[in-house]
Amino acid sequence: MEALEGGADYLADERKKTQFDVDAMKIFWAGGRHEFQIADRMARLVASDPEFKKDHRAMLGRKELFKNTLRKTAHAWKRINELRLTEEEASLLRFFVDEPAFTDLHWGMFIPAIKGQGTEEQQKKWLPMAYRMQIIGCYAQTELGHGSNVQGLETTATFDPETDEFIINSPTLTSCKWWPGGLGKVSTHAVVYARLITDGEEHGVHGFIVQLRSLDDHLPLPGITVGDIGMKFGNGAYNSMDNGVLRFDHVRIPRDQMLMRVLQVTREGKVVQSNIPRQLIYGTMVYVRQVIVYDASRALSRAVCIATRYSAVRRQFGSQNGRETQVIDYKTQQSRLFPLLASAYAFRIVANWLTWLYKDVTERLQAKDFSTLPEAHACTAGLKSLTTSVTADGIEECRKLCGGHGYLCSSGLPELFAVYVPACTYEGDNIVLLLQVARFLMKTVAELGSGKQLAGTIAYMGRAEHLMQSCCSVQKAEDWSNPDVIVEAFEARSLRMSVTCAKSLSQFSNPEEGFQELQADLAGAALAHCQLIVVSKFLEKMQEDIPGEGVKQQLQALCGIYALSVLKKHLGDFLSTGCISPTQASLANDLLRSLFSQVRPNAIALVDAFNYTDHFLASALGRYDGNVYPKLYEEAWKDPLNESVVPDGYHEYIRPMLKQQLRSSRL
Amino acid sequence: MEALEGGADYLADERKKTQFDVDAMKIFWAGGRHEFQIADRMARLVASDPEFKKDHRAMLGRKELFKNTLRKTAHAWKRINELRLTEEEASLLRFFVDEPAFTDLHWGMFIPAIKGQGTEEQQKKWLPMAYRMQIIGCYAQTELGHGSNVQGLETTATFDPETDEFIINSPTLTSCKWWPGGLGKVSTHAVVYARLITDGEEHGVHGFIVQLRSLDDHLPLPGITVGDIGMKFGNGAYNSMDNGVLRFDHVRIPRDQMLMRVLQVTREGKVVQSNIPRQLIYGTMVYVRQVIVYDASRALSRAVCIATRYSAVRRQFGSQNGRETQVIDYKTQQSRLFPLLASAYAFRIVANWLTWLYKDVTERLQAKDFSTLPEAHACTAGLKSLTTSVTADGIEECRKLCGGHGYLCSSGLPELFAVYVPACTYEGDNIVLLLQVARFLMKTVAELGSGKQLAGTIAYMGRAEHLMQSCCSVQKAEDWSNPDVIVEAFEARSLRMSVTCAKSLSQFSNPEEGFQELQADLAGAALAHCQLIVVSKFLEKMQEDIPGEGVKQQLQALCGIYALSVLKKHLGDFLSTGCISPTQASLANDLLRSLFSQVRPNAIALVDAFNYTDHFLASALGRYDGNVYPKLYEEAWKDPLNESVVPDGYHEYIRPMLKQQLRSSRL
Repeated sequence: MEALEGGADYLADERKKTQFDVDAMKIFWAGGRHEFQIADRMARLVASDPEFKKDHRAMLGRKELFKNTLRKTAHAWKRINELRLTEEEASLLRFFVDEPAFTDLHWGMFIPAIKGQGTEEQQKKWLPMAYRMQIIGCYAQTELGHGSNVQGLETTATFDPETDEFIINSPTLTSCKWWPGGLGKVSTHAVVYARLITDGEEHGVHGFIVQLRSLDDHLPLPGITVGDIGMKFGNGAYNSMDNGVLRFDHVRIPRDQMLMRVLQVTREGKVVQSNIPRQLIYGTMVYVRQVIVYDASRALSRAVCIATRYSAVRRQFGSQNGRETQVIDYKTQQSRLFPLLASAYAFRIVANWLTWLYKDVTERLQAKDFSTLPEAHACTAGLKSLTTSVTADGIEECRKLCGGHGYLCSSGLPELFAVYVPACTYEGDNIVLLLQVARFLMKTVAELGSGKQLAGTIAYMGRAEHLMQSCCSVQKAEDWSNPDVIVEAFEARSLRMSVTCAKSLSQFSNPEEGFQELQADLAGAALAHCQLIVVSKFLEKMQEDIPGEGVKQQLQALCGIYALSVLKKHLGDFLSTGCISPTQASLANDLLRSLFSQVRPNAIALVDAFNYTDHFLASALGRYDGNVYPKLYEEAWKDPLNESVVPDGYHEYIRPMLKQQLRSSRL
Repeated sequence: MEALEGGADYLADERKKTQFDVDAMKIFWAGGRHEFQIADRMARLVASDPEFKKDHRAMLGRKELFKNTLRKTAHAWKRINELRLTEEEASLLRFFVDEPAFTDLHWGMFIPAIKGQGTEEQQKKWLPMAYRMQIIGCYAQTELGHGSNVQGLETTATFDPETDEFIINSPTLTSCKWWPGGLGKVSTHAVVYARLITDGEEHGVHGFIVQLRSLDDHLPLPGITVGDIGMKFGNGAYNSMDNGVLRFDHVRIPRDQMLMRVLQVTREGKVVQSNIPRQLIYGTMVYVRQVIVYDASRALSRAVCIATRYSAVRRQFGSQNGRETQVIDYKTQQSRLFPLLASAYAFRIVANWLTWLYKDVTERLQAKDFSTLPEAHACTAGLKSLTTSVTADGIEECRKLCGGHGYLCSSGLPELFAVYVPACTYEGDNIVLLLQVARFLMKTVAELGSGKQLAGTIAYMGRAEHLMQSCCSVQKAEDWSNPDVIVEAFEARSLRMSVTCAKSLSQFSNPEEGFQELQADLAGAALAHCQLIVVSKFLEKMQEDIPGEGVKQQLQALCGIYALSVLKKHLGDFLSTGCISPTQASLANDLLRSLFSQVRPNAIALVDAFNYTDHFLASALGRYDGNVYPKLYEEAWKDPLNESVVPDGYHEYIRPMLKQQLRSSRL
């Protein structure tokens, strides 16, 4: 391990306690040997390249920070070409560079939008240029006044049959494109979403490829006002990204720059549906959200790695062999940290399952089987909401678990939080998504008994009769380690909450009004359903063979911690629906405590299994070798304020104060 | 209102709906007419002074930001002197300047430490210089390796009888003073906490006045290494403060610079207890924590004000008279926002009650009555923990309630969050404090039935027999508006949780081991006790006459929202202890929803009552006039990245990429 070279390992004693095969766990975490090796290689490649150093990032002014990121991006592109990296490798390299940049949108949104919504001809024309980065693109959907509600977008694309062009226009201030990453300063092109208007008639919102800047001198083209929308949360964080504002004043583009895979506008201005099913677009949403769930497991595991290592290093109060107690040995610390460790593993397992789901959906779509789409859509929407909310809160919790030092940028945690939280809002606001799940659940409940086949994550509702009356059989704490008991408790809770909502809804004469009034409860029911999915998928995974000594035992303990800590947090749900009794709740708590003790000696190894380099963690507190304090001390002196002993401003502002000369000074 | 001048009021329709006397509510919120007037005057004074403008704060590099704060601090001191402001006024002026600075520590910690722990002679010598700012002081307690556990500090102060001096020393790296605000670059003096050693014997940790920098040229004195500890969370936030690191290499100070009010070291090196009771120091802790609770109500109300106004401006989905629906009309929005609005009012009421408590404790201490001290101490420790945790989470929730735009610094919310969160850690880590409360509760439960008189916030435990068996009488939703019903449910829940913990503890042969093992549950019981205090104090206040039409009705609705949303959030506690039934929980939820509807038309007026200027809010989203979007747009263009159309770095990094020249370039 890089961090070990040349230094003592202050966590060696912890590592000696490990009761499982860490290398095997690394492969499990990565999702396979190939995945492990490629990620490991890319991580080391980035960590060992001085161009990718992260020092000072939090201290730079906006312009320096941005320019620094441009430099890293260009260097990354150079290395990707020199080393002839595959797409998978290149994407991992960018991930380990670990700085939001315009390339994220170019590769992650611009190219996929053309691939998904462009005709074959359009793909042939635009993709090669995009792949070579001869053009740089972004994804311009949201507007100053319109985020979640895509159908409310105001930008117009009016077809002019005389010239065979679309006129792209921003009719109001609130119609300015707002937020697209890479737009503000870099992108030469954008996929712009606008209301299609032909012959005075509206045809909904569609995507158009619009060139924004000259390829010669990078100046905005006529009719285009474009700029950066200003500083965002955090020091470095997303401020290395040029999220932008874009205003169109009747900008003309050729007709063939409308993305026409699904809908076409003819030379005459006629709107024609193609024979490609619209549902394909939902397939893309399933994909994007799978990636987000995967990223949640990355971000949460990173925070947990830092907090776990520092909790083993830090000592406070108490006495262990004459020294203060390691804070990781406090039960309050364990009860906050270990559920997050378990969640990181849970989300990783769910993300891997979603990869399978996406493959399954895609195959079905190609066979024109749309039957599983609503369930897959609800499931991914819900899991995106659940995992990003837990991760955002979890990173902040990890920061607090590091005490005061977590507040320093050198801990790595403030940056991680600030850069992560937008995930709760982008690609579907988390509450809006839960309400979409709730609608799906209400529809499912309404159809219960209709004989309709329920498959996938909603299959349990087919056993409604049983679940409405089932009784939890737990009589002693260990009974809670039975997977069937856990699944049934979660299924019963979820179903009963949905059924209660459905009953309440039925008392409204206007169902939409009822849905509005009961939103908060509906969101609760949706969350319960999503938590059930995570618990089930974790438990299902535990039915498989998992190589490596002791690996499965650790995962089983984490699975128990995940399920029982969710149960504890949402105890009100389980009790009020009568799924479990107060005594059974208390027994679950007993088992949870003993699982904490079981995981404790393995905690460091369980975060080592994430295989994160010190470069990637970028945290004085999360160092592999645990040698925290000299690093914190060293980092402090790098601050620009320490460039001079006497600070700039002393003579103007401090000295006159001390010398009682402020009244006469010319402040 | 300043914000109204020269502009339309986009929230006028909202304000027309108001059903209470906003001016009267302003006075209630401020705590009296005098308090309102003085705060209003200081807020306007700061808002109207161009020197105190907040523009660009988030965009400055560290050095510029720091220098800018020095400038504001000096200007504030100049104005304070010119206008001959009282201490109360000066403190409010500094508050509205709204930028953490060394003066916070000088006035808030250095001077109080000398006042509280210095002898009369020492006060006479040091305070006049400090009051005139001829010296600037900070409070150097925490160390790199030691935070919460003050008794674990490593810095030593060894008495040298030969020279009549103390030798202050940092024996290890982890003994460096670390975190003190104002230390890094500004303070000339510090109150330094160190282990007192005389004649080879240790006498615990005490405070010493140590000069750090020359009053002539501001250079650190011999033996002193001092600097800034580097960037912290957020853009501006606490980075305007020079939190510092300080290392002593055998620095000598005269004996009379030990703060000797409670403990004295004689010329011969003898340690003598004075006749001043040590408990006086706890009185100071009660004071400091009362201030923190008050600040929580300030910070939370500020975030709620921004989120509420923007929720009324922002429209998304749905349809209201042909326009999209105001997001404040969504129940999910209300169910997240209104409990925070209610919490802001609740914390203000509790803070005002704590002012009384501090006065009461002080009077008793002066009369050598220490009987109420443990309860007062537990109560303030717990309320500090509760209110700061809710406020930190609440600010972040308000940010999320503003959708994507909340992530922009121009929303004011990222800064507010970053600047607020340390409150969860400083002056007692929130979990450590809850465990202190838990210890007090366990002691109280153990003494139940011993005939010991229980007073104050713990009095309800005297009715243990009744509360262990009481049944909640609620039969319909409105029954939950009965104060007695609410208090009894909260009392029963708190008592039963404590009693359950006590029972579990009694099964351990080693009580300390049991306390460690059950920490998480104990913290839960402590939290329940603290929530009871807030609910009780809010309800008690509602027994008083409150002037102003409709004011009391609004407060009663908020009180109900506070209590019932806490009940909803912690439903597991109430159900598992059998304090209420699932049906009663569901009825509480029904009443909660109807209280949301009751508060909805008054929401804007309820945040207007905080009387915050647009300058103070510093939020494009929270503007008094609701004219949000032009302001967001305007703010965007101020970003340094927008100084040039083509960004710095284009020629080096973007153009070569677009022109396929990266391989040949000299990157």
